[in-house]
Amino acid sequence: MKTFLDCLPCMMSQALRAGRMATNDEKIIKELLDSIGAMIKDIPLENTPPQTGDVIYKKVREITGVIDPYKKIKEANIQEALSLYPELKEIIRKSDNKLLTAIRIAIAGNVIDFGVGKDFNIAEDIKNALQQDFGIFDFNEFVKHLEKANTILYLGDNAGESVFDKLLIEELNKPVTYVVRDIPVINDATYEDAVASGIDKVAEIISSGSSAPAVIPELCNNDFMERFNKADMVISKGQGNYEGLSNVKRSVFFLLKAKCHVIANDLKVKENDIILKGINF
Amino acid sequence: MKTFLDCLPCMMSQALRAGRMATNDEKIIKELLDSIGAMIKDIPLENTPPQTGDVIYKKVREITGVIDPYKKIKEANIQEALSLYPELKEIIRKSDNKLLTAIRIAIAGNVIDFGVGKDFNIAEDIKNALQQDFGIFDFNEFVKHLEKANTILYLGDNAGESVFDKLLIEELNKPVTYVVRDIPVINDATYEDAVASGIDKVAEIISSGSSAPAVIPELCNNDFMERFNKADMVISKGQGNYEGLSNVKRSVFFLLKAKCHVIANDLKVKENDIILKGINF
Repeated sequence: MKTFLDCLPCMMSQALRAGRMATNDEKIIKELLDSIGAMIKDIPLENTPPQTGDVIYKKVREITGVIDPYKKIKEANIQEALSLYPELKEIIRKSDNKLLTAIRIAIAGNVIDFGVGKDFNIAEDIKNALQQDFGIFDFNEFVKHLEKANTILYLGDNAGESVFDKLLIEELNKPVTYVVRDIPVINDATYEDAVASGIDKVAEIISSGSSAPAVIPELCNNDFMERFNKADMVISKGQGNYEGLSNVKRSVFFLLKAKCHVIANDLKVKENDIILKGINF
Repeated sequence: MKTFLDCLPCMMSQALRAGRMATNDEKIIKELLDSIGAMIKDIPLENTPPQTGDVIYKKVREITGVIDPYKKIKEANIQEALSLYPELKEIIRKSDNKLLTAIRIAIAGNVIDFGVGKDFNIAEDIKNALQQDFGIFDFNEFVKHLEKANTILYLGDNAGESVFDKLLIEELNKPVTYVVRDIPVINDATYEDAVASGIDKVAEIISSGSSAPAVIPELCNNDFMERFNKADMVISKGQGNYEGLSNVKRSVFFLLKAKCHVIANDLKVKENDIILKGINF
């Protein structure tokens, strides 16, 4: 997905939020915003938004000196998600369509996103996602691909959401490789966050090799790209990964919540719709 | 009021909105955002937000070549407000406290603001403002000052809102001078807009002498400042005028709706509260 004009003020807002997570020093945050402002002219609209995000969060690390501003928030979100796990496991167990219920819960977990700047309430958002109609619903194709797949590459998104991904991985009932960001960026899941979420119990965990807040083929390492190209099925979580991968040639199933009007327009759905969208299937 | 860090991404959003009102050419709007981004480093947080707004809307005019991007919207808002006028006049006539009801309606009109970027529904917002509790309510002091005043300077804000200002001016029952922006900026009322709103029937209309989207003493002309300093009573409408005047030495009564969290924090009220605040009285 290309960068839209609306993404540019949003990048400034993201830098402000991340700067505030990293420091209370208003002068440092002003310096950060000065730098991000000056960078706007070098952002081509042809780039995907997370490519720009990569540059911006690098600048946040450089100017504030803080590598992981969202560390404590990520830990708290993982703990909250883990506390909901037994109840959700039970909801899935009792449901008529366990896979679909697990998909709904995994998408609901996608609200735990500090890139977008919306308030969320994890428990409440899950309740809603269990009822909500899908904006795009390629479930039948998802099931067909799943039945045939021997290797599944599951692209993680946020820390905390990762706990809900575990619930879905358990229902996939196939060997899964779970992909995390190479280093901390926003509140996205790293290797450490995935382990804290219990993903290591149900999947192999690998890094995309990139610091971007999304899987963007041009920025990932060769090892990852080989796995990406060869996997029988790719399941991609979240907005960032959709933005980075919406134009790739291989089949991908995107699970996300359309949390801003830009992505909702791109997907031709309403803001806050839940999405199960396959491409090239 | 000083510029807060949150104002900087907001300035980018305002430039984007104004750019889009002026042109459909994405390249020109990108060029505009590039310029605004590069200007962030020259914005001292000590400035008031509308001082920065002045520079930004100048850049919008310079890069898009459009002097009044909100012209049509202003005309439509004035027409809608005029269509509500007879009904509101009747509500005031029948009310127990005509002055207070007119103040509520004048504040409700302050939602017609394209600087803030919130959706609004004029008729509905007026209904709410007739019921809503005030966040700050210096009404007794307002009445005392009004009773003693022989000259009232009324600082207008948005076009359309100006029609509701007329209703309040009619209840003040004193000689009023109504102040407009010197040239079009956002959807703020100019001389032409004030006349289209019928203000010329109830008040003298003068310009602040400034292109800023607010009355900022340093940017206004001498004629205006003399009137400002000498007026028995100053009534100031809207966020911009509050931001520009909150630190002046003379008494001012501010009527506004706190439409963003920055101004709500500064006033120590809740976002969307309605405000009647006097200073130095």
